[in-house]
Amino acid sequence: MINIGIIGANGYTGFELMKILSRHPNARLQILTSRSQKGKKITEAYPSLTALKDQSFEDVDMDKLSKTDVVFSCLPHASSAEICAKLYKSDVKVIDLSADFRYKDIELYENTYKVKHPAPELLKSAVYGLPELYRDQIKNSSLVGNPGCYPTSAILPLYPLLKENIINNSSLIIDSKSGTSGAGKKADVDLIFSEVNESLKAYAVTTHRHTSEIEEVLSLNSKSDVTVCFTPHLLPITRGILSAIYAPLNTAVTMDDIYSIYAQYYQSEPFVKVIQELPQIKWVANTNNIFIGFRIDSKNNMLIIISVLDNLIKGASGQAVQNMNIMFGLPETTGLVG
Amino acid sequence: MINIGIIGANGYTGFELMKILSRHPNARLQILTSRSQKGKKITEAYPSLTALKDQSFEDVDMDKLSKTDVVFSCLPHASSAEICAKLYKSDVKVIDLSADFRYKDIELYENTYKVKHPAPELLKSAVYGLPELYRDQIKNSSLVGNPGCYPTSAILPLYPLLKENIINNSSLIIDSKSGTSGAGKKADVDLIFSEVNESLKAYAVTTHRHTSEIEEVLSLNSKSDVTVCFTPHLLPITRGILSAIYAPLNTAVTMDDIYSIYAQYYQSEPFVKVIQELPQIKWVANTNNIFIGFRIDSKNNMLIIISVLDNLIKGASGQAVQNMNIMFGLPETTGLVG
Amino acid sequence: MINIGIIGANGYTGFELMKILSRHPNARLQILTSRSQKGKKITEAYPSLTALKDQSFEDVDMDKLSKTDVVFSCLPHASSAEICAKLYKSDVKVIDLSADFRYKDIELYENTYKVKHPAPELLKSAVYGLPELYRDQIKNSSLVGNPGCYPTSAILPLYPLLKENIINNSSLIIDSKSGTSGAGKKADVDLIFSEVNESLKAYAVTTHRHTSEIEEVLSLNSKSDVTVCFTPHLLPITRGILSAIYAPLNTAVTMDDIYSIYAQYYQSEPFVKVIQELPQIKWVANTNNIFIGFRIDSKNNMLIIISVLDNLIKGASGQAVQNMNIMFGLPETTGLVG
Amino acid sequence: MINIGIIGANGYTGFELMKILSRHPNARLQILTSRSQKGKKITEAYPSLTALKDQSFEDVDMDKLSKTDVVFSCLPHASSAEICAKLYKSDVKVIDLSADFRYKDIELYENTYKVKHPAPELLKSAVYGLPELYRDQIKNSSLVGNPGCYPTSAILPLYPLLKENIINNSSLIIDSKSGTSGAGKKADVDLIFSEVNESLKAYAVTTHRHTSEIEEVLSLNSKSDVTVCFTPHLLPITRGILSAIYAPLNTAVTMDDIYSIYAQYYQSEPFVKVIQELPQIKWVANTNNIFIGFRIDSKNNMLIIISVLDNLIKGASGQAVQNMNIMFGLPETTGLVG
Repeated sequence: MINIGIIGANGYTGFELMKILSRHPNARLQILTSRSQKGKKITEAYPSLTALKDQSFEDVDMDKLSKTDVVFSCLPHASSAEICAKLYKSDVKVIDLSADFRYKDIELYENTYKVKHPAPELLKSAVYGLPELYRDQIKNSSLVGNPGCYPTSAILPLYPLLKENIINNSSLIIDSKSGTSGAGKKADVDLIFSEVNESLKAYAVTTHRHTSEIEEVLSLNSKSDVTVCFTPHLLPITRGILSAIYAPLNTAVTMDDIYSIYAQYYQSEPFVKVIQELPQIKWVANTNNIFIGFRIDSKNNMLIIISVLDNLIKGASGQAVQNMNIMFGLPETTGLVG
Repeated sequence: MINIGIIGANGYTGFELMKILSRHPNARLQILTSRSQKGKKITEAYPSLTALKDQSFEDVDMDKLSKTDVVFSCLPHASSAEICAKLYKSDVKVIDLSADFRYKDIELYENTYKVKHPAPELLKSAVYGLPELYRDQIKNSSLVGNPGCYPTSAILPLYPLLKENIINNSSLIIDSKSGTSGAGKKADVDLIFSEVNESLKAYAVTTHRHTSEIEEVLSLNSKSDVTVCFTPHLLPITRGILSAIYAPLNTAVTMDDIYSIYAQYYQSEPFVKVIQELPQIKWVANTNNIFIGFRIDSKNNMLIIISVLDNLIKGASGQAVQNMNIMFGLPETTGLVG
Repeated sequence: MINIGIIGANGYTGFELMKILSRHPNARLQILTSRSQKGKKITEAYPSLTALKDQSFEDVDMDKLSKTDVVFSCLPHASSAEICAKLYKSDVKVIDLSADFRYKDIELYENTYKVKHPAPELLKSAVYGLPELYRDQIKNSSLVGNPGCYPTSAILPLYPLLKENIINNSSLIIDSKSGTSGAGKKADVDLIFSEVNESLKAYAVTTHRHTSEIEEVLSLNSKSDVTVCFTPHLLPITRGILSAIYAPLNTAVTMDDIYSIYAQYYQSEPFVKVIQELPQIKWVANTNNIFIGFRIDSKNNMLIIISVLDNLIKGASGQAVQNMNIMFGLPETTGLVG
Repeated sequence: MINIGIIGANGYTGFELMKILSRHPNARLQILTSRSQKGKKITEAYPSLTALKDQSFEDVDMDKLSKTDVVFSCLPHASSAEICAKLYKSDVKVIDLSADFRYKDIELYENTYKVKHPAPELLKSAVYGLPELYRDQIKNSSLVGNPGCYPTSAILPLYPLLKENIINNSSLIIDSKSGTSGAGKKADVDLIFSEVNESLKAYAVTTHRHTSEIEEVLSLNSKSDVTVCFTPHLLPITRGILSAIYAPLNTAVTMDDIYSIYAQYYQSEPFVKVIQELPQIKWVANTNNIFIGFRIDSKNNMLIIISVLDNLIKGASGQAVQNMNIMFGLPETTGLVG
């Protein structure tokens, strides 16, 4: 059994981790921390987590956390790195769901998040937790920076095509639409039902932080200088992301050419499904899958890719558990719905 | 032109008043107050109110307010009575959307709202702003306590039947379901989209404050001691209330008997529609109508009434404007969608 | 491994059965029939069922079906009994999700469903598939009539209290609200998104077929003549039922008295959770649980019970798999999320 | 009073026309046709249209229609042109909401809609009913082809910038998201609530018919050869379209430059609002407005425009009434909510 701590468990990613791990055959949820909820029973805050009926939220106790096998951090950036650094140095494996260990370029991180990184020396030891690109390094790592939800939805479809030089590495347009759980569980009047319902809005246009994460990961992996124009939207649904990606083609290709490339990269991936149809969000809700479909607009020499994933699962907590499975030598799909 | 002030205009009922009155041919919105938004342009907070593009939210200024013809108060109870009392004494007509002037029995109000009433001496001058029951008094009144949304949905269908002694005055069950705008525009984690969406909950079961309002108004008007068992639910929609009312029949009646009674009371009412079908919320959204349908369950000797209204319009701001029209001698439907 | 056939698999209950059983460790989905979809790959119709990527919908073939261990029928009533009767006689275990084997009183069934029952002789062999009431009989049965969704939500909370004579057996009011998946997957203009969204309606008031099912099961089990007034509503959510039940108390009781009774009946039930709070639909979505909460309205001497379940799981396919587990001697929770 | 006929009134655009025109001070709804509903009272099908309680749906009667002043056709393409042609020849003014009179290039129409045009000779007399571009021609026209919903959302923001040569005329990307009412009121299993809810899908990628309409109108008006890559999505909301438009800049410009251009074209337009913020769908629901906001992505030399409108109003029936007002010399905003 893997003894597990979750820091900042009272939020949507924390909730999802508790849900997945309470059903995971090799996991023992030992410590669940939440400053705001400490002392409260888990089932008081989350009645549906009936399996955790005997456990309560605790305050952060570094001593106790340092005796677990792995800690998932759901803290906000900057606070997260601080505590993760300590745990990492105490030989606890760490999976950080914040942005703190996703970047290689410290300056890019600091410009993006407008904070000083509390543990820049660890960036070189950290691995970007996208199994499809970094599986071997994750296997041997003790510090994983779990990818952002939007970046997962954009990097997986783009990476093979950039690597094979099929599409342009600049002028990539990523038009993403996310369910509201992506904004977190917080008392914000802009997130209340009557504001979000029966509407749609674009937000953080040209300024969203995930832009630099997408660009860095794709640039490093395609050995080219990738730039993207990224526009997120807030959807009136609870969970799921659909990204429409517009990629100018470098060369004349057929649908089959593109299927072949994807097959080459992803055919044995358990959670990546490249399909003939254009995927819909409801096909991936509550699963760790990402579906990818595409069409060629010959008139405009443009490839249009549609990807969908569940922002709380493949976009966050499911992927974190996938990383844990890899780090502990378990079958990668253990405890996950594919 | 009627010069109008709205106090506490930055909320859903305030917004709806601004929307209705900015299109009302006899209304001039003169003062729109909001402590939290003061100085901000109306269209900055509410871009859809394009007609108010030259106006801004102000702080409360009693001098200026006392020069208007009528003030609508959207403040919370207790704070509302305080300011309304002053305006009333300055000869401004007042329509209070809080609960402060809905009750005749001061003790009942104070037990229900757990506060000391700031102006109990005015209760006898105030009129309950339900035109279908109190039109003549509203006409001559300068202080109207605008009804609650749930009470409007329950009192209108029940009053004629209680008055005619067709149904039992105890054991009335009112099972109501309301859109989330009824909970107000406030930063509350229980109201955020991901919490409300794809769910339903009952709340305040046996303890909701509207229970005593319903009971007092029905008792006074039917000259009997009416008690109700009232259960509200929070619906994942923005606007609208559907109330299912279970009323034991005192006597064997036909559907036609009941239609006759309703016709007698409501046939010339512009906003009350008693129909053959069972009404749906979408039929009344964005209108000042209430639809009433019913069925007789002979086996159980029970009348089942379904009423629907828009909680922000007939349940609040539309009814307030209907009251204003009556108070100023305008055609009652002016500026309202029926 | 249990070899399984599902007849009429192309619908919401069929889909849910395929989803649950494709993850069930003891299940092998052998035959999946659908007249309208025959020949089509399962993943073409349901891309999310990635585990079934090598299987297709077939036409009904009695020979092949008669070689399975168990058949789930998702056919409409009357058609279902016809085929189930044949399979039952071929020694295949049958779990029928239609109403055909839920009744003991043939006349009540025929009056309710307005058809002649095609296999009335089997009613006495059939067991009502509600494990909490009929576990022992289900264990030894080869023909289970799987309960309706609304009846499950009403019978489980009412049965112990009627049995213990705490509440009145007449004048029970059941005000239920169901997600739209309960109406099935069919091309009906009243079910399209723009009609259902942002609305609520009551339907089949005083005439819903589940009324007689609730009454018969509760009457048989409480040895009294139970009558209910049942009102269903269509909610703008996909899945889940909330029932508000109004039961006049026979005697003065405390909350604790009622908890004791429920504990006595349900404390070792894996899927029945009697709780202090009032439950919400989202707590049970995608699980086989039913949550029950309640309040006493002393003034009206009324017990108000709120129950929630997922209409497709505990209200249909999950309960069907729970029955299968019992019939095959497996741990009752196998493959089910509690 | 303008005597009006609506053909094919039983659908979402027909309903919206009836709603707007029943409140329009100069309109008399004389004939409302629907083959499927003929003989049925309007309020039986649409209870909310209380003002039409004395009218019924009729079958198409050319004699009666030819005595009206104006006919709105909500028939499908091809059937619509046939009947519109006859009415036009009988000197009735015609506003056709189908695609039949939107094109100048007959071949483009026939390739797009895969039908033979029944009245090609009328295309040169017809005017594209977008008042902001064709007001003067509409004024003198008796045959208006009312624009598509997506084209309205794309043409209005793009036209001034193409005309002024600020943006590239090829490689324009239009990523649109529409509420489900855009798909019409029809019994289609893909449109039922449980299919659409909690999901999002792109559809008709590279093949949507509105592509050629956008291209033709923009090309004619900018005197250049405009090509667009258009991707529509189906949103789980009832009404509203948000289009995110990606336009490569021809030259370095500031936000102010662009505001100036828009002001030059649209500052006296009653229904076009160019704003500082990025607009949201709920700001335009139930109004005839289009809101336009934008951002410059300097790194990618890209202009990102966000437009929102109500697909049933500015995207269909409201715009049709705006055209009627122009054709009859009424103030353009009469009966419309801005």
